Formats: sequence, C-alpha cells, structure tokens
Amino acid sequence: MTEDRTGVWLIGARGSVATTAIAGCAAVAAGLHPATGMVTATDPFADSGLPPLETLVFGGHDTAHTPLPKRAEELVTSGALPHGLPAALRAELSAADDALRPGGPCPDDPRGEEELIDAFAADLDGFRRTHGLARVVVINVATTEPVPAGDAALPASSLYAAAALRAGCPYVNFTPSAGLHHPRLRAEAERSGLPYAGRDGKTGQTLLRSVLAPMFAQRALSVRSWSGTNLLGGGDGAALTDPGAAAAKNAGKARVLSDTLGELPEGELHIDDVPALGDWKTAWDHVAFDGFLGSRMILQTIWQGCDSALAAPLVLDLARLLARAHEVGLAGPVDGLGFYFKDPDTGSSALPEQWRALLSLAARLGARP
Amino acid sequence: MTEDRTGVWLIGARGSVATTAIAGCAAVAAGLHPATGMVTATDPFADSGLPPLETLVFGGHDTAHTPLPKRAEELVTSGALPHGLPAALRAELSAADDALRPGGPCPDDPRGEEELIDAFAADLDGFRRTHGLARVVVINVATTEPVPAGDAALPASSLYAAAALRAGCPYVNFTPSAGLHHPRLRAEAERSGLPYAGRDGKTGQTLLRSVLAPMFAQRALSVRSWSGTNLLGGGDGAALTDPGAAAAKNAGKARVLSDTLGELPEGELHIDDVPALGDWKTAWDHVAFDGFLGSRMILQTIWQGCDSALAAPLVLDLARLLARAHEVGLAGPVDGLGFYFKDPDTGSSALPEQWRALLSLAARLGARP
Amino acid sequence: MTEDRTGVWLIGARGSVATTAIAGCAAVAAGLHPATGMVTATDPFADSGLPPLETLVFGGHDTAHTPLPKRAEELVTSGALPHGLPAALRAELSAADDALRPGGPCPDDPRGEEELIDAFAADLDGFRRTHGLARVVVINVATTEPVPAGDAALPASSLYAAAALRAGCPYVNFTPSAGLHHPRLRAEAERSGLPYAGRDGKTGQTLLRSVLAPMFAQRALSVRSWSGTNLLGGGDGAALTDPGAAAAKNAGKARVLSDTLGELPEGELHIDDVPALGDWKTAWDHVAFDGFLGSRMILQTIWQGCDSALAAPLVLDLARLLARAHEVGLAGPVDGLGFYFKDPDTGSSALPEQWRALLSLAARLGARP
Amino acid sequence: MTEDRTGVWLIGARGSVATTAIAGCAAVAAGLHPATGMVTATDPFADSGLPPLETLVFGGHDTAHTPLPKRAEELVTSGALPHGLPAALRAELSAADDALRPGGPCPDDPRGEEELIDAFAADLDGFRRTHGLARVVVINVATTEPVPAGDAALPASSLYAAAALRAGCPYVNFTPSAGLHHPRLRAEAERSGLPYAGRDGKTGQTLLRSVLAPMFAQRALSVRSWSGTNLLGGGDGAALTDPGAAAAKNAGKARVLSDTLGELPEGELHIDDVPALGDWKTAWDHVAFDGFLGSRMILQTIWQGCDSALAAPLVLDLARLLARAHEVGLAGPVDGLGFYFKDPDTGSSALPEQWRALLSLAARLGARP
Repeated sequence: MTEDRTGVWLIGARGSVATTAIAGCAAVAAGLHPATGMVTATDPFADSGLPPLETLVFGGHDTAHTPLPKRAEELVTSGALPHGLPAALRAELSAADDALRPGGPCPDDPRGEEELIDAFAADLDGFRRTHGLARVVVINVATTEPVPAGDAALPASSLYAAAALRAGCPYVNFTPSAGLHHPRLRAEAERSGLPYAGRDGKTGQTLLRSVLAPMFAQRALSVRSWSGTNLLGGGDGAALTDPGAAAAKNAGKARVLSDTLGELPEGELHIDDVPALGDWKTAWDHVAFDGFLGSRMILQTIWQGCDSALAAPLVLDLARLLARAHEVGLAGPVDGLGFYFKDPDTGSSALPEQWRALLSLAARLGARP
Repeated sequence: MTEDRTGVWLIGARGSVATTAIAGCAAVAAGLHPATGMVTATDPFADSGLPPLETLVFGGHDTAHTPLPKRAEELVTSGALPHGLPAALRAELSAADDALRPGGPCPDDPRGEEELIDAFAADLDGFRRTHGLARVVVINVATTEPVPAGDAALPASSLYAAAALRAGCPYVNFTPSAGLHHPRLRAEAERSGLPYAGRDGKTGQTLLRSVLAPMFAQRALSVRSWSGTNLLGGGDGAALTDPGAAAAKNAGKARVLSDTLGELPEGELHIDDVPALGDWKTAWDHVAFDGFLGSRMILQTIWQGCDSALAAPLVLDLARLLARAHEVGLAGPVDGLGFYFKDPDTGSSALPEQWRALLSLAARLGARP
Repeated sequence: MTEDRTGVWLIGARGSVATTAIAGCAAVAAGLHPATGMVTATDPFADSGLPPLETLVFGGHDTAHTPLPKRAEELVTSGALPHGLPAALRAELSAADDALRPGGPCPDDPRGEEELIDAFAADLDGFRRTHGLARVVVINVATTEPVPAGDAALPASSLYAAAALRAGCPYVNFTPSAGLHHPRLRAEAERSGLPYAGRDGKTGQTLLRSVLAPMFAQRALSVRSWSGTNLLGGGDGAALTDPGAAAAKNAGKARVLSDTLGELPEGELHIDDVPALGDWKTAWDHVAFDGFLGSRMILQTIWQGCDSALAAPLVLDLARLLARAHEVGLAGPVDGLGFYFKDPDTGSSALPEQWRALLSLAARLGARP
Repeated sequence: MTEDRTGVWLIGARGSVATTAIAGCAAVAAGLHPATGMVTATDPFADSGLPPLETLVFGGHDTAHTPLPKRAEELVTSGALPHGLPAALRAELSAADDALRPGGPCPDDPRGEEELIDAFAADLDGFRRTHGLARVVVINVATTEPVPAGDAALPASSLYAAAALRAGCPYVNFTPSAGLHHPRLRAEAERSGLPYAGRDGKTGQTLLRSVLAPMFAQRALSVRSWSGTNLLGGGDGAALTDPGAAAAKNAGKARVLSDTLGELPEGELHIDDVPALGDWKTAWDHVAFDGFLGSRMILQTIWQGCDSALAAPLVLDLARLLARAHEVGLAGPVDGLGFYFKDPDTGSSALPEQWRALLSLAARLGARP
C-alpha cells in the first residue's frame, strides 16, 4: 500500500448523494458508465494533476445505519441509480461501508464539543493510516441543518469541520449548513494552511439562475419579479420543511440574483417536500421582466432532475480538485470554485465568469510540480 | 445643420421593428421612457464615443405605404407600443415618414438590377445630403426572404445591401435574408472598406439557447434532444409559413446548438403563424439530457415576449455601434457583435463569450480618436 | 321609475372586481364589447327570465374612497380594462359612484354589531327606495378576511351579510370570507326565506382542477401529488400574505381535490404576492400520477389570466341568477350554483356535474311564472 | 378446456402497446400490480358481466419477429415496464408468443386481397379452436398507416378488419388507420351483426383537450388559438414523420376542438419523432383565449407520460367491453365508447359526456342475461 491513493471522507455517508458518489466513482472507474456530469473528466482538466478516480478511497460519518449496498438498492427503487449497478459494485460498496464510522452527536450524547471533535479527527486519522492515504478530503453532504440560533454552540456540521482542521484535511461544504463557515472556526481555518471550499452545491434551479440572470443584465432587460417553487422528494425535501433549514438554503439561492441583477427582485422561493417524487426534483421559475418602452415579458423554466445524480459527479470533482489543491500547497478558500456553489467563498455569482475562473484554477493546478 | 448627426436608414421602414425603433428612439431621447433593453445605454459603453440618440435621423425604404403615425397606432392596438405614445411623438413619426422612399422591386418592375441599386443608392445619398448627415447606417429589418434558389439573381435584400456599398454606408443585416452575405457581393464588400454586421437578430429563443447550451457543455451534461416550437403572430409569423423563409431562420437557430454542444442534438424546430397572438411570440423549448450514470433529465423553457420590443433597442444599439465603427475607420465584419446575432460573422456562438467580445469592442471604439 | 330594475350591491365596491363588473355591465349593455365570459349570456339561459344587463343598477359599500372613474383608470394602467373604456363610460361609473356608501367598521368605530348591521341595512333599503328597485342582490367581492379566531364576534363580511338578511336581500359570497356562513347567522339565514349562494368564486387554478381531477378519477389514474403556486399582484395577493386569509383561500382550493379524488394527495399550495404582476395572476400546477404497472407520469398546467376580468362576468351572472331566484321564490342555498364556487353550498365538486346542475337551474328558473 | 375463456387478438402484437397489454394483464391477474389505469376495474363495472382478466388468452399478427419475452426486456430498458416483470411473467409471455402468427402483406407478397383476408381469418379461427375460446376480440394496435390515397386497394389494417368480419370477431381500431372504417368495408360491417369500436385511442394530449375545451365553452371564454407539439420516441414517433400518417393522427386530434368549441381555432399541431425519449412522450399545448372586455389570457399544459402504459389498460378495457357486447348480442358501432377514442363512431367529443355514456353502457351490459 503506497501513498498514491486519496481518501474521500463523506459527512452523511449513507445519504443519497454520498451513496451515488461512491457507486458512481466505482462504475466510471470500471468503465460501466461514461463520466457524464463530471466536469473534471473533460479536456481542460487533463493536465491538472488530479488524482484518478480509481485511486479514490471512500469513508465517512453518518448517524444512520443502513448498509451502503442496501442504500444503493433503495436508490434503484427510487430511480436514482440504474438497475443492476448495486449488484455489479457490491464489493466496492461493502469496502466503503466497512470504512464508515458512527456520526454524532447522538441524542443524550454525553461527550462535549472538544471530545466529539477529537473523536471525529481520530476517525479521519485512522482512515488515513489504515489505508495508507496521501491525504483525506472531507466533504459535507449531510442533510441541511437549521441556521444556528447563535454562535455559542457548534452545530454538528461545524464539529466535523473542526475535526477536519484538527486532522489536517482539506474540507468542502456541499450543503448550506454552517460547517467551516461558523464564526468560531474562522481564525482556526485561516491558521490551518489547508485549502477549503463551499458552500451549498449548485445543482439545479440556482445553476439555471446563474446563467439566466447575467443574460437579463447584459441585455439591459429589467427584471421585476423572480418567483420559484421547488418540489423535492427524498430526505432533502423533508429536511427543508424545517423553516430554519429552508432559510439557510434560500439565502444562497437569492444571492445569485442580487449579485447579478444589482438588487433582489420581488418574488418568493418555495421548497416543498413531496415524497411521491422520490429522489427527483422539479423546479419552476417565473421571471417577469420589462423590455423596451415598458413592454411586459415573461420567462418560465421547468427543471426536472435527479438530485443525487446532479450532485454526485460534482462531489467527485471537488474531491479531486481539493486533493490536488492540497498537494500543491494552496491554502484558504480556493479561488475558482464558485462554479460549484450557490454561495461561494470568492468570486462572481455568474456562471460564465465562474467557468473562466475554474479553467484558470485548472491551469494553476497543472502548473505546480 | 452641421455634420454631427447620424442617419439610420431602415429597409422595411414601415414594419413593426422599424416603427418601434423610430418611436422608441424619440421616446427615450425625450425622457418619456428609460432605455430598457438598449445595451449601449449601459455603463460599459459610456466612453465609446457612440452618437447620442437625439442625433439619430431616420429614413428608409419600404414597399408598403401605411404612414408611420398610423403604423404606430396599429402597434398600440396589438400591445407592442404603449397607449398615448404615437400622439406624443407625432412630429417625430411624421418627420421620419417624410424621409421614407418607395422600396422595390415591385411586381412588373421594368428596372434591372443595376438600375435598382443605383436608385436605392441615390436615395441614400439624397438622405445624407438633405439632412447634412455625417454618415448613414443601413439596417435591414424587412420581412424574411426565402433562401435564394441560386446565385444568379440578387434578392431584394441584396440589392439594398449593394446600394449601401455603392453609397458608402455601413450595413447591418438584422434578418436571416441574404443581404450583404450573398456570394455575388462578397468581393465588393471586402473592397469597400466599410464596416458591416449580421445576421439575424437574436431576440428570444436563440438568446436563451446561447446561454443554456454552454451551461450543459460546461457541466459535462449530455444533451440528447433539443426541440422547440415558436408561436408568432404579426408579419413575421406569416412570412415564416413559407418553408424557404423558415429554413433561412432555422439555420441560424440551429447553429448555436451545434457550435456550443459540438454536435446538433435530435429535435425539430417549428415556427407557427398564430395571428391571434398579434406582435407577441411564445417559444417553448424542451431539452432532454443525460446526467450521471445515465439518469434522464429535462429542462423546459417558455419565453413570452413582444418581438418588436425585443428587436428595436438592439437595432438602435447596432446603428450607434456601426456609426462609430465607421467613424473610427473599422472595415469588414466588425468583431464583437456576435452578441446581437443568431448567425454572426465572427466569433463564438455562446453568449458569455460574445458579451466579453462586445465589451472589448466598446473599449476599442472608445480608444480611437 | 318603475319596479323593473334590479339593484346589485357590491361589498368592496371600489375594488378591482367590482369596478370591472360595473364598467363591464355598462360596456356590454352599450354594445361596446361582447359578453365574453358571461355564462348567462349563452343560449341555455335565454328563457330563464333573468334580468337584462341594462336593468341592473349598481351600489355598494367600501371603506376606501377612490372614485370609481379613477379606479377604472387605474385598471387601464394595470391592463385589466381596455384603453378608452373609462372615458366612454364616465356617466355610468359616476352614477354608480354616487350610490356608494362608506363601509365599516372603521378602526375606533364606536358602533356595536347591531348598530352597524342596522346602518348597513338602512343603506340597502335606501338604495332600493331611491332607485325604485324590484330587489337588491348583495354580493361580497371584498378583500379576503382572515379565518375568524372564534365565533364570538362577527367579522365585517358577516355584518354585511346580516344586513342583507335584515333588509330582505338575496346574498352571494364571492370570497372565502365567512359572510353568511358564520355559525351565528345560520339560523337566521334559514328563517329568512331568502336565496343565497357561495362561496369563493372559482376563476382560475381551481376551475382547472375541477375538470382535471375528475379526468384522473375516471381514467383510474392514481394521483400521488398535486402541488401548486399562485402568483398574484393586486390587492388579493397582498391580502393573502396574511396566513389566516391564505388558509381561508386554500381550504376551498383543496376541497375540489379531496372530493373528486377520494383523498387529498400530497403537495402544497402557495399564494404569493407579486405586485409587479398588477391585476394578472399566474398559476402553476404540478400533478404526479401513477399509470399502469406503476409508471410515473406528470401533468403541469400554467394559467395566466387577469383576475378581475375572470371574476367580473361571473359576478354579473350571479347577480342575475339570484335576482331571478328571489323573484320566483327560491329560498336557502340555491341548488345548481356550484359551477361558480370553489367551496359550494351544495352539490358536486366536479365541473361537468356542476354544469349539468346549472343547466337544470336555468330550466327551473324559466319554468316559474 | 371450456368455452369460458376469451381470446384477444392483437394486430401489431409485438409492438410496445401489445406487449405491455399482454404483460400487464398477466401482472394484474397475478396480483403483482394494481389495475391502475384500467377503467373497467373500477366499481361502476363490477356488475357488467365483463370477462375476468385471468380468462383472457392472447394471440395476434405481426410482421416483426422479436419474441415477446425479448420485447418485454426492451421495454424495461426504455422505462416502459418495471424491472423484473419480464422474468416473473416469462411463461405467460412465451405462451402468447406461441400464439402469434406472421402478419402481412410482406413486400413482394404474391397473395391478393382475398387470399390475405382468408389467411388472416383462418388464423383467427385456428386460435379460437385451439384454445377453445368463447370468442375472439380483434384489436388493431399496429403502427399508424398513411391515409390511403384512394378507395381502390385495402390497406393492411383493413385486410385485418375484413378478416375479423369473416371470422365473426368483434373488432376494435385503437389507431387512426383505416381498419374497418374503410368505405369498402362499411356495408359488410353493417351486415355482420358484430359489435365494433374505434378509432384512435385517446391517451394524452387529446384526453386533456376533451376536458379543457368543454371548460372554455361552458365558461363562455373565447378560444382564439390552440397550438400543440408532441414529442414522441418509440415506433409511433418514427411512423408519424410520414406526413400521411401524421395527417391521419391529426384529424382525430382536431375533431375534439371543432366539435366542442363550435369551430376550429387557429393553431397547428406538430408530432415530432425524438428517439431519445424512448417510449415516453411529451405534449405541450398553448391556448390563447379572450375573457371579459377583450382581456387576453393563456393556458399552457405539459403532459409527460409513457405511451404504452397509457394505452395498454385501455386496450384491456376494450377487449373486455367488446367481448361482453358480443356476448349480449350488440351489433354495429357500440354506443358509449367515445370515452376511449379521439375520433369516436358515435356520441359527444367531450369527456364528461363520454363518461356518462360509458356508465350507461356499463349498466346496459350488466342488465343483459
């Protein structure tokens, strides 16, 4: 076992996104499926020195207990994974399942903050040593938490983020939860010298908005209202019926509009839990805009996608990019990753500029030894 | 009368787009309406040396005879112009009407090609001298012609384009008709030293496609089919029931997909004449794409807009840009105007890159003395 | 002045619906517009003995003060009334304005319930005597009230309804407010011998649902979720941001689904206030249903309409139908009017059966002397 | 083997609809799936004396050769049948496959019309005798034929229909092809004393139109245009790229509008072949209508369904209904089946009235001995 392998540690490792990422990485590495949706599998990243998919090793935390092969079968039933795939990848899914560790804090957990962070960091350390990994990228893909009431106590997502710092691991927050963005972690994050990225993966409605809003701005069309409704089955929909969690989600979604249009137009954004839709989501957007001489015009979009299939390849992209960023010594929020996030740490909110920034990062990563 | 005024000569000067451009220019110049939809009225163009709206003088050719003030009233009825505007701008509309000249060739026109071109060029020359104009920009906004059967005879749009060359006028083809792109005019256009631009203004469905197609490409999502239906009232819809005219229109629309996605996906594009919609158009697009592990996803868009209100501010933009390009001595197809066209002479088919190219042109135009 | 004229007393008489009903009645009576959207103007009602439009006299209560001619001009601006109509109908609008009386209770109103009911009943009586009317139909088209917290105090809508009873007037509740449906008014309503109808006019999304839900049921297709979003400008949207008012509205909307499908499917219903839309509303519905062998299918509908233009002709219909019902001596909730309401007093929730019931009422009304 | 079993003979027996009907009948009979989408499985039909699903025996003609178990696997791949079903029903699919006979005429078929009809009738007769069937219902679910150029030669669909008459079999035309509606067969059909039904199964867009068009008519709303686009994968889409076949299809689709609205509104209807959609179809409809005082409103619908899953349960319904109709001695076009067809032989084009007519048929069938 040599140090040419990279660990990917998923917070929420038994969720739909994590299961799809683990299964999908194995499927693509085995040549069962093309790398559709993986941006880092396209030409501009060929010379960036990213770790190959077959060198990724998966582990993670979760408070749930369903084994990964069973979760994969559930995703087949809900239409998120193709039939036959869990059976074909049983060995890989079982191997990842063996590397999972119980998450926390559980209800009535007697451990304090420090104790929990230590325990999680020890899990990360153990994973790295057991598998002889060059490095471990920690990625939060757990269910969205409510916005913390105050800064006093660290929410679970931030405990895991603190553990990543403590164990010297690059970190990605793919959710709108606090994670490493908690005010109490800021100074430590900066001191750590580690690269990190976030937050809130951009997989559907906001992705669309990040190309449409610049179009209106560039054409000097005046957006008067932008309304949206998201119908989500699966765990995400249920979590977001919590008004606090929805607020966290919506803050990121609104930002692309206010950044790009100069001000936030009228209009609300709803996130509905519709279990009948399974892992599929539907997003309807209604944009009322004014044209020349006050003419009233309307654009509507309907996006129907599988949430975990949209997110998983981006998670694999980010694992590869952060691993390489760590290898070449980048520290702090990595410039050029706004392409992936609703609420990016740095840069523009418009997808075209984010794409150019990502290409520039691809070149920078390749230029390093 | 000094040479600080610019002529705008519209082929199809009594049509909806031309009438809206003429009325809109006056309305914005008089402060009755903001310059919504005029890209050249935004900050990046402030120092480009473009002629102010109040210095534009309108004339044009048309084979129809309805006076412009009456056409403007008709556009109020169909919802394309605001109530009260024609009355407020009666003087400006009448002045432009006085400058219009009969178009051609009419049925049974005894004049040959050369004679017609000479007559049109004389009209341009007369307009320039009568009004003491620094220059005259010729813009084709006439009804779309069928694709010419061969290269032998010049279609009307190309006769007008030849007249622009002969009279030393910058030229814009806002339609999919042949115009200056006719093979028989190519050499003369190159020799002329004049700036020109085209073709086929990008006002709705193709505008959307030029931001959505790059999004799919950048996200490595595999587009399997892209189907569309356009419902058009007004003259454009009727003209495009001619299969030849529709073919001309669709060629430009398809180009953005094949250029951006690497190949043309499955799917047809319909243009229906629906007179009940008046000057409004509705475009429905259905995009089936594959995500990770073969998941099947769908994006649909519905665009409801007023065709002439979308086109007119772009026509004013192009008049200003071509006038300045001529002033600073640019020749040939002007780099950086793909932003305005479905089938541009130069550059990318993706709107974000076209926007950057346009900003670059704005800077170049400003840098010249 | 003979007793062949019918009074129409509108609660909320300065609102968009009332203003459109008053202006529209005059416009159709004068032959300026066809009676599009008025069901009672179609053949099956020709022999029902309904009062002609030209015999309707309008009055009403409102707490607002804008004169009707001015309100009509505002509706032109928002696109709800055609240009020129207020000027053409100035006399009729002014006449109706003269017949309006201040509504209540105002903030700090010293009057008690009985006093208010007496005052409103006196207004009705005065209107009838002044104009020598055969009868006065009272119709509530005021802004939706929140669901009353308890049965103790009568909300304003119920004060007006009690006044209608006291003055011997047929009554229609076109809103979801309590009105005559308040428990404290039930016995009195039954004793009154007056005909009444309600509640909550069915003008858009629920109208659609009342034909689509029966289709799914008849085809034995299993509806799994039915989600909807309404975007409303105008006063209605603003009122419905009050969660209590929205609850009142949504109860009626849900009923058509539970009645027709046997159970209420998953899915939420949002009503958003989007002032940019003016008097226009947009309703998006998303229906996920199962077909044969568990196949998952989807129907989506988008309804874009002008709320007051949809409601006003139905208000005129109901005025005519209730007047005739009173004339022929019908008492209690009038059978056969479910066609007009989201939450009807009697009969089916499916539009096709409601239509047959309405035709039957048309015949019954015609059969009476 | 007693005569309590009913034969169902499918023309186009290896197609998607037929395969789904055969597999679905077995799946429902075995309790593997509920009878979703089968109208005859609902309460109103409980006492109509319809043959139970488990007594249906399948056979049919096809010019293709792929075995039914293989076709069923292909439908799993395209998402039209659930995973695992073909394996669970291998015996039933193989049994049906054994009963299939080669269709015709093949290219260069030397047989004349009479010979072909005789051969097909002999197949029907053999099927009935071999399986000891009480009767055999012939149902055309083959690919749509072009509209015949003239009345001279019988198209294939009519040869099969003539064979049904000759063999004394009730007949259903689920497609827009000529079938028994060919002028040359009319007299023979009437003389035969057999019940029959058609034509063109109503499974999606036209189903919607048959409830929406009556809604507009009943509400006195004036439909100005009704435009539609259908995207179809699978064999049907490809067949309908033939303009003749599309014409046949569209005639039925238009009829519901002209019948219900009194005249055919503006607007075209497109049927596109989009193989990427597999067995799924998407139908977009755009309806522009006028409301009160000339207000312009719009309804749009998007229907996404699996064509074979929509059609198959209706095919089973019709097999049961026609078998019972034959048993009780009905002859000629069966009244009350317009519910199933775009272009019904008898009755209204509006779904609600068709539903009542179907309920009436259900009662009539049950009343017979």
